[in-house]
Amino acid sequence: MSAKGNLTIKNEFKESDKNGVYRAIYSRRDIRGQFHGDTISEEVLSRILHAAHHAPSVGFMQPWNFILIKNFKIRRAVHEAYKHANSEATLMFSEDKREKYQKFKLEGILESPLNICITCDRNRFGPTVIGRTANPDMDMFSSVCAVHNLWLAARAEGLGVGWVSIIHNRELSEILCLPENIVPVAYLCVGYVTHFPPKPELESAGWLPRLSLEKLIFCDQWKTDCQTNWPKLYEEVQSYRNSYQE
Amino acid sequence: MSAKGNLTIKNEFKESDKNGVYRAIYSRRDIRGQFHGDTISEEVLSRILHAAHHAPSVGFMQPWNFILIKNFKIRRAVHEAYKHANSEATLMFSEDKREKYQKFKLEGILESPLNICITCDRNRFGPTVIGRTANPDMDMFSSVCAVHNLWLAARAEGLGVGWVSIIHNRELSEILCLPENIVPVAYLCVGYVTHFPPKPELESAGWLPRLSLEKLIFCDQWKTDCQTNWPKLYEEVQSYRNSYQE
Repeated sequence: MSAKGNLTIKNEFKESDKNGVYRAIYSRRDIRGQFHGDTISEEVLSRILHAAHHAPSVGFMQPWNFILIKNFKIRRAVHEAYKHANSEATLMFSEDKREKYQKFKLEGILESPLNICITCDRNRFGPTVIGRTANPDMDMFSSVCAVHNLWLAARAEGLGVGWVSIIHNRELSEILCLPENIVPVAYLCVGYVTHFPPKPELESAGWLPRLSLEKLIFCDQWKTDCQTNWPKLYEEVQSYRNSYQE
Repeated sequence: MSAKGNLTIKNEFKESDKNGVYRAIYSRRDIRGQFHGDTISEEVLSRILHAAHHAPSVGFMQPWNFILIKNFKIRRAVHEAYKHANSEATLMFSEDKREKYQKFKLEGILESPLNICITCDRNRFGPTVIGRTANPDMDMFSSVCAVHNLWLAARAEGLGVGWVSIIHNRELSEILCLPENIVPVAYLCVGYVTHFPPKPELESAGWLPRLSLEKLIFCDQWKTDCQTNWPKLYEEVQSYRNSYQE
């Protein structure tokens, strides 16, 4: 084995660690129901918040804050804001889809034991931030990575997380007293759950199908298909069956 | 132990799986150098792409595509676009910071064996998408989650990933022949590396410090501090030392 080969292997996780990473990725779900009342300990909460805080951030600006919401008066106000945005949303669907849309449960604001709003401070360490010069939304993307780290860590801890995106930011900002430069990125419902569904709910309900990954891959430029240009990869992607689905 | 307690434990990962998740989160790095020449097998590439494809997506729209770029003519064009955006960026820093900025290596476009551009198709399954009605950028955030899944899976496989954000989208779109509705979300340099630095490079270089997480947490509303309002959590967060740092 070459020295390079040794380096490659050195940096690779051992099988049991890899298993954990892929298991979290494949079994994470967007949770809106099935919360039960178990309290989240400070120890577990600290672990998932530290995981979020170790997300990648553009220019190391760490633009996030975490607002932990337990107060029911505030949660009820957020729930009203959700209902308002959802009634607008309902009218946007064509009539043939509207009835089905209305049957989906799209939030767990009041049933979950904890809500977390993850924000982005657009001025932190600014105005000039390494890596945000050509793409001003990179700070928002950093906060999204924090959301996703929290989500995966929560899955490992057995905690369900649901991202409620049907709320207007201006209403949420008012309820949470956010200053102008602080933008809400994600409003999350967090808690222990009776179970994690085996597949995304919109897939199980037949709303949309899982796309075939091999068709989403191009080589070098848009629409230069993988089947013709990298057939070995195409076959590998097409035949892959993960062993982590639960 | 209560029935609820049993459910909580049932959904929690076993210690070895948890270890893998947290190890990936804490040891992932934004890689710009130290690439070496080992080829990435189709098997490994397929695994990290499937991980990306299993990211959460708003309304299950799966808005991503993956453009795998090996061609050197295209990579040289992307590198020129980087140099252009970076020369603009350099002038944005105040004179006292400019010299230090110019010393940072901020991309590995030509040295890494593979570049991957992850995009967002803003029209996929649209125009009306569940969850994107009040927040039109939720599809972009979904593609960011795909980027981050790929990044974590790559870390587990021993592959370094660097996100190059100093390129104007309009130039990148032209080079990669993207249609109007396809937006580049991340341009990644991917390859095996000699090592993963123990800390983010901008932290080690003293550009910016790691913020104290406990100060970034508020309770119920902005600026309602955690120390006064949830002292047990504040202490837990402050005293937490992860055992996964490498």
